[in-house]
Amino acid sequence: MENIVVQTVERADPQIVRRLGECGVATVHEAQGRKGLMASYMSPIYAGAALGASAVTILAPPGDNWMLHVAIEQLKEGDVLVLAPTSPCTDGYFGDLLATSASARGCRGLVIDAGVRDVADLTKMKFPVWSKAVHAQGTVKETLGSVNVPIVCAGAYVRPGDVIVADDDGVCVVAREEAEAVLKKAEARVANEASKRERLAAGELGLDIYDMRARLAEKGLKYV
Amino acid sequence: MENIVVQTVERADPQIVRRLGECGVATVHEAQGRKGLMASYMSPIYAGAALGASAVTILAPPGDNWMLHVAIEQLKEGDVLVLAPTSPCTDGYFGDLLATSASARGCRGLVIDAGVRDVADLTKMKFPVWSKAVHAQGTVKETLGSVNVPIVCAGAYVRPGDVIVADDDGVCVVAREEAEAVLKKAEARVANEASKRERLAAGELGLDIYDMRARLAEKGLKYV
Amino acid sequence: MENIVVQTVERADPQIVRRLGECGVATVHEAQGRKGLMASYMSPIYAGAALGASAVTILAPPGDNWMLHVAIEQLKEGDVLVLAPTSPCTDGYFGDLLATSASARGCRGLVIDAGVRDVADLTKMKFPVWSKAVHAQGTVKETLGSVNVPIVCAGAYVRPGDVIVADDDGVCVVAREEAEAVLKKAEARVANEASKRERLAAGELGLDIYDMRARLAEKGLKYV
Amino acid sequence: MENIVVQTVERADPQIVRRLGECGVATVHEAQGRKGLMASYMSPIYAGAALGASAVTILAPPGDNWMLHVAIEQLKEGDVLVLAPTSPCTDGYFGDLLATSASARGCRGLVIDAGVRDVADLTKMKFPVWSKAVHAQGTVKETLGSVNVPIVCAGAYVRPGDVIVADDDGVCVVAREEAEAVLKKAEARVANEASKRERLAAGELGLDIYDMRARLAEKGLKYV
Amino acid sequence: MENIVVQTVERADPQIVRRLGECGVATVHEAQGRKGLMASYMSPIYAGAALGASAVTILAPPGDNWMLHVAIEQLKEGDVLVLAPTSPCTDGYFGDLLATSASARGCRGLVIDAGVRDVADLTKMKFPVWSKAVHAQGTVKETLGSVNVPIVCAGAYVRPGDVIVADDDGVCVVAREEAEAVLKKAEARVANEASKRERLAAGELGLDIYDMRARLAEKGLKYV
Amino acid sequence: MENIVVQTVERADPQIVRRLGECGVATVHEAQGRKGLMASYMSPIYAGAALGASAVTILAPPGDNWMLHVAIEQLKEGDVLVLAPTSPCTDGYFGDLLATSASARGCRGLVIDAGVRDVADLTKMKFPVWSKAVHAQGTVKETLGSVNVPIVCAGAYVRPGDVIVADDDGVCVVAREEAEAVLKKAEARVANEASKRERLAAGELGLDIYDMRARLAEKGLKYV
Repeated sequence: MENIVVQTVERADPQIVRRLGECGVATVHEAQGRKGLMASYMSPIYAGAALGASAVTILAPPGDNWMLHVAIEQLKEGDVLVLAPTSPCTDGYFGDLLATSASARGCRGLVIDAGVRDVADLTKMKFPVWSKAVHAQGTVKETLGSVNVPIVCAGAYVRPGDVIVADDDGVCVVAREEAEAVLKKAEARVANEASKRERLAAGELGLDIYDMRARLAEKGLKYV
Repeated sequence: MENIVVQTVERADPQIVRRLGECGVATVHEAQGRKGLMASYMSPIYAGAALGASAVTILAPPGDNWMLHVAIEQLKEGDVLVLAPTSPCTDGYFGDLLATSASARGCRGLVIDAGVRDVADLTKMKFPVWSKAVHAQGTVKETLGSVNVPIVCAGAYVRPGDVIVADDDGVCVVAREEAEAVLKKAEARVANEASKRERLAAGELGLDIYDMRARLAEKGLKYV
Repeated sequence: MENIVVQTVERADPQIVRRLGECGVATVHEAQGRKGLMASYMSPIYAGAALGASAVTILAPPGDNWMLHVAIEQLKEGDVLVLAPTSPCTDGYFGDLLATSASARGCRGLVIDAGVRDVADLTKMKFPVWSKAVHAQGTVKETLGSVNVPIVCAGAYVRPGDVIVADDDGVCVVAREEAEAVLKKAEARVANEASKRERLAAGELGLDIYDMRARLAEKGLKYV
Repeated sequence: MENIVVQTVERADPQIVRRLGECGVATVHEAQGRKGLMASYMSPIYAGAALGASAVTILAPPGDNWMLHVAIEQLKEGDVLVLAPTSPCTDGYFGDLLATSASARGCRGLVIDAGVRDVADLTKMKFPVWSKAVHAQGTVKETLGSVNVPIVCAGAYVRPGDVIVADDDGVCVVAREEAEAVLKKAEARVANEASKRERLAAGELGLDIYDMRARLAEKGLKYV
Repeated sequence: MENIVVQTVERADPQIVRRLGECGVATVHEAQGRKGLMASYMSPIYAGAALGASAVTILAPPGDNWMLHVAIEQLKEGDVLVLAPTSPCTDGYFGDLLATSASARGCRGLVIDAGVRDVADLTKMKFPVWSKAVHAQGTVKETLGSVNVPIVCAGAYVRPGDVIVADDDGVCVVAREEAEAVLKKAEARVANEASKRERLAAGELGLDIYDMRARLAEKGLKYV
Repeated sequence: MENIVVQTVERADPQIVRRLGECGVATVHEAQGRKGLMASYMSPIYAGAALGASAVTILAPPGDNWMLHVAIEQLKEGDVLVLAPTSPCTDGYFGDLLATSASARGCRGLVIDAGVRDVADLTKMKFPVWSKAVHAQGTVKETLGSVNVPIVCAGAYVRPGDVIVADDDGVCVVAREEAEAVLKKAEARVANEASKRERLAAGELGLDIYDMRARLAEKGLKYV
C-alpha cells in the first residue's frame, strides 16, 4: 500500500452539510435507506454534541498518530477528521494540542475508531469527538499511513469529502454525491414527524395511525 | 412459539411500586435476597433517572420493533415497557415518537436489552431508558413477537406485572407477589443504613460495628 | 498465598502526590515514559473527577468485599483504595456506606477493577470512583484476601504507597520512589505545552513546529 | 433468597430425552418455535460432543463451587448438571475430579455459564462440557446457593427436569412437559429435511422449492 | 437503499484465484501492502480449511437469511458467499441444507460476519465457513437485502468478484483488478521465505540476516 | 522508560521447570495458593499442548514486533518467549519464520497477550503458542521496547526467569525462587488426587469425603 496524501478533495455544499447535521443521525440514516451508520461503540465524549461536516480521512497504524499532523494541513473550514487505524487500537491518538491546531484550521470535530485523551480539556473547548475509547495511552510518530483515501471506519465506508453527521445517537456517513437528495428526504421526514408526534401525544396509537391491525391479524397475532 | 398478546395483567399496588422505586436498586436487590438483577451492561441514557413501575413485557425479533406498537396499547398508568430480543441485537428499536406515544398512555420508561435512539430528545423529555446500546440503526415491522409473556431480559426473568426498579445502579425485577414483603425489608434497610452511616461518618470502623475482627483472625488473617 | 495485612506503608511526599494529581493522567503517563497506565475500561463514575493519592492496595476474591473493611482501617489522609479481584468480577463491592467510612479516614477515592454501586449517592458525596462496571450486585464476607501487597489492577502493577493519578482520561500509577522525578518532568511538560498551544492556536502547523516534513518525505510519503 | 435443595424432580421419559438429543440443537430449537436457546458464547470443550439429558440445576455464587458437590448427590442416570452463577464469572468451577464423581452417578455432562478446567482430562474421559470459559482459576466452598431451583443460564430459563439438548451448535432447553410434542415435530423436521437435501444436492434452488420468486418481486427486489 | 441483485459480476482468472488461495492469508496480506484483512474474530469452523475464491456478496438484515437463497442462484463454480448483516447479529443464517445447495452450484465456502449452524455436518461435508459466531438461532425470510453490491464485512470492504483468501489465520480480500499483481508478489514472498527459513533453522539470527543491530543501537537500545 | 535488554537472567533448575510443566496449570495454580494465573482469554492455538519453561520477557509497542528478534538472541534451551504489548493489540507479531528461529535456539513456545499468525504451520511444527488472538495482521519494526524486564502479561506479573506452566487450561506463572517449593506441593496434590479419584469413581460423594454436611447445615442449607 503506497502512503499518500490526496490534496484535492471535493466537498458537498456547506449549507447542505450544515443542514444534514441539523437533521440528526437517526433521521439522516433513515432518509438514505438505513446505510452508512458506524458501529454503536462510537460514543461522544460529552452529551449534546452534534455535527455536520465534510470528512478528511486518515488511515493510521496502531499506536502511531503521525498522520494526524499531516491531515491537519489538509483541513478546510467545516471539515471533520475521520481516523481508522489499520488494526484495532484504543490508544489516545488525539488530545487538546491537536484539537487546538485542528480548530485553528476550521475543523469541527473528530471521529476516531480508536482512543482519545485530554477529554476534560476537549469538553471545555467544546471540541466534539466520537471515539471507541478514552485512553491516555501515548502514540509514536514512526510509520506512515495515508490521508484522504477511502477508509472503513467503525464498519462504515468513508471517502474523503463524504458528509459526516454525528450526535448523541452515533455517527452516519452520507456519500457526497447523494448529500442533496438525502437532505431533501431527511427534511421531509422531520416535517412529517412533527404531525405524527402531535397525534401520538394526543393518545392516538401507532397501530391505528400506521394501520397495522389487519396485517398483524393476518400474520397470526392472537389477543388472549 | 405462538405469538400472543396477553391483555389481562395483574399489577402490584401502585403505592408499593412507587415506594420500591424510591428505595433504589441496590437496596431492593439486597432486600429480596440478591436476586432479579439485570446484567451490568444495562445503562441509563442519562444520569439521575429512577423508576418504580409495573412491567409490560415484549418479546421481539432482532431488528424488528413491530411489537412495541402492539405493547403500547396494553400500557396502563405507571407501567414500564420491558423488551427482550429473541437474539442479541443493538438496533435502535425505540425513539422519541414511540416515547411520545408511550408517555401519552402513562408509561414511565423503557428497559430494553437492545438499542435505543433519539437519546438527546428522550433526555429532554425526561423519558428514562435503560438499554444495552445507543444506536441510530432503524428496525422493520415484519415479524411477530409476543406481548405480556414471561421473558428473560438481560439475564433476569421478568413476567408481566412484575415490579421494575431502576436507577443509576442498573435494573432489578421484583416478583409481583413478593412486592409488599420486599418493600417492608427494603424500607427497614434504608432506616437501618441511616444509623450505620452516622457511626461510619464519625470514624467508627465497619470492623468494629459488624464485629469482624475475631472471625478474620480465626480465618487466618495476619497483620504484619 | 498467605492472607496478610501490611500495616507499614511508605508513602511519597503529600505535596508531590497532590501536584502529580494536578498534572493529570496524560501528562504524567508521558512524563514517566508511557508506563503504569491502567486499561481503558476503567471509567470515572462522574465526569470531572481528578485525583492524586497514595495507594492502599486490596486483593479480594470475586464477589467478596470483606477486605475493604480491613483496608479502611489502614487508610491515612490522602490515600486512595485500589482493589483488584483475584478473578474477573463486576459485582458492586463498594457503595455509599463504605465511602462514608473511607472518607472519614481521609480517603480520596477508589480505583477498582470490578463494580461499584450507589453511584448516584457517591456522585452527590463527590467521592470519585474509577471502575470497570457499575452494578448493584451485592457481595459476601466469607473469604480472605490481602491488604497492602503488590497487585495487578486493570493491567497495571501497583504496590502499596505508589502514587495514583486519575482523571477523565483514566488511571496511572507512579512508583513511589520515582514520584519526585516524574513530577519534575510532568511539570516541565505542562509548561512546554502552554507555548505549543499558543503557536498551534495561531495556526502554525505541527508539521513545522516539530519539523516533520523532511522525515515524512524520506519515509516515502507522497502528496498527490 | 433461601438456600434450598429440591430433592424431588420430575423428569421426561428417558427415551424422549435421548431422541431429542439425537435430533440436535438446531432442529429442536426450530421444532419448538425458536425458543430456549442459550447464548452463542456457550461452547463445547471438544468438537463432536452431543447430549440429550435432564437438568439438575445449580445456582452458585461467583467463584464458589460448593453447590456442585451438593448437586452431584441429586443426580440420576441420564442427567446433566446446569450451573448459573449469581453474577458473571469465568472461574473454573469444575474439573476432572468432579467429573469422575458426577459420572459415577450417571451424569452425562455439564452446562455452565462460567469456567471449567482440566479440559484435557475431561476430553480424554469423553465428559462433555459446554461453558463460557476455560480457566484454571480455583474456587472456594464458603457460600450457599441452591440446587434444583429455576435458573437463568446463558440467557435461557431452565427448571429442574427440563430437557437439555447440546451439540457443536450450542445448548437448547426444552420444557419437560413439552418434550414429547417437541420431539414429534423435531423428528418430522429431520424426515422432511432429508428430501429437501436431495433436491438441493441435485441443483434445485431454494427459490423454487420454497416458491420465493413471486414474494421477492412483490417486496420490490430488482434484478439488474 | 434499493434492494438489488446484480447478475453480472466480473471475476478474476480462476488460476490466479486458486494460486492466491495456496499462498495463504498472511502472505497475501503482506504482498498487497497489509490491507484487506477482516477482523480477527472471523474464525474457521474447523482447523485446516483454506480457500481462494471469488466473492458473491450479500447484504442482509439482522436475523433474516432470505437473501442467501437469492445469492445461491448467482453462484458460479469457484465462488464463495460473503455475507454482511446490516447490523450486528450472531444468528445462524446458514446450515447444512444451504451448504448442500451452494455446493451443488460450485460454491467453495462461506464468509459471514454473523452466525452459522449445523457445524458438525458442515465439517463432515468439508464445507468451510469463516464466521463471527456459531449459533443455532434460526432466521426469518421477511425483509429484502441485496446481492452483489459492495459491502463492509468484518471491517473489510468487499466488492462482488473480489478474491477472498481464507485459512486458519483469517480472511483477506484482494481487489479483483489487483489479483494478478498481488499473486506475483505473494509467490515471490513464498520463494524468498524458503531461503530465510533455512538460514533461521540453522541458527542464524534475524538480527543479522536483516542487519538490525546498527539501527537498534542508533534508536538507543541498551544491552545491560 | 529506557529501552533495555537484560542479558543475564537467572533461571530455575531445568528439572524443576520440566516437572512443573508435567503437573499442569490447574494443579500448579492451586499448589501456589491460586496466584499467577493469566486471563482466560489466553488460548492455545492447538489442543493438547503443554509447557514448563523459563520466561524470556518482551515489552513491545502495539503493532511492532522488532523486539522479538532481539529477544530470540537471549533465548537459552528450555525457554519460552513471553510478550506483553504496551497497549492492547491483536496483530500477528509472530509466525512460522520466527518460530523456526526461536526453535533453533531451544525455545519451547510463545505466550503472547496479542496475536499470532501462520497457525497452521506452527501446529505442524508442534510449536505451541498461547495467545489472545489469531490474526494475519502484519507488524512493523520501528519502535523500541525492552527484553527481560518485568512485565504484566494478560493480568499476570512476570519477571525474566520465572517459570511458565501452560496447557489447555491456560497459562500460570511461578516465581523462580518459589519454583522448588511449589513443585513439592504440586506433586503432593497430584498424588493425593489419585486416591480421591478412585473413591469418587467408586461412587463415594465429595459431601462425605470432604465432610461437608455439617457445615452446609450450619450455614442454613435446607433440603426440601
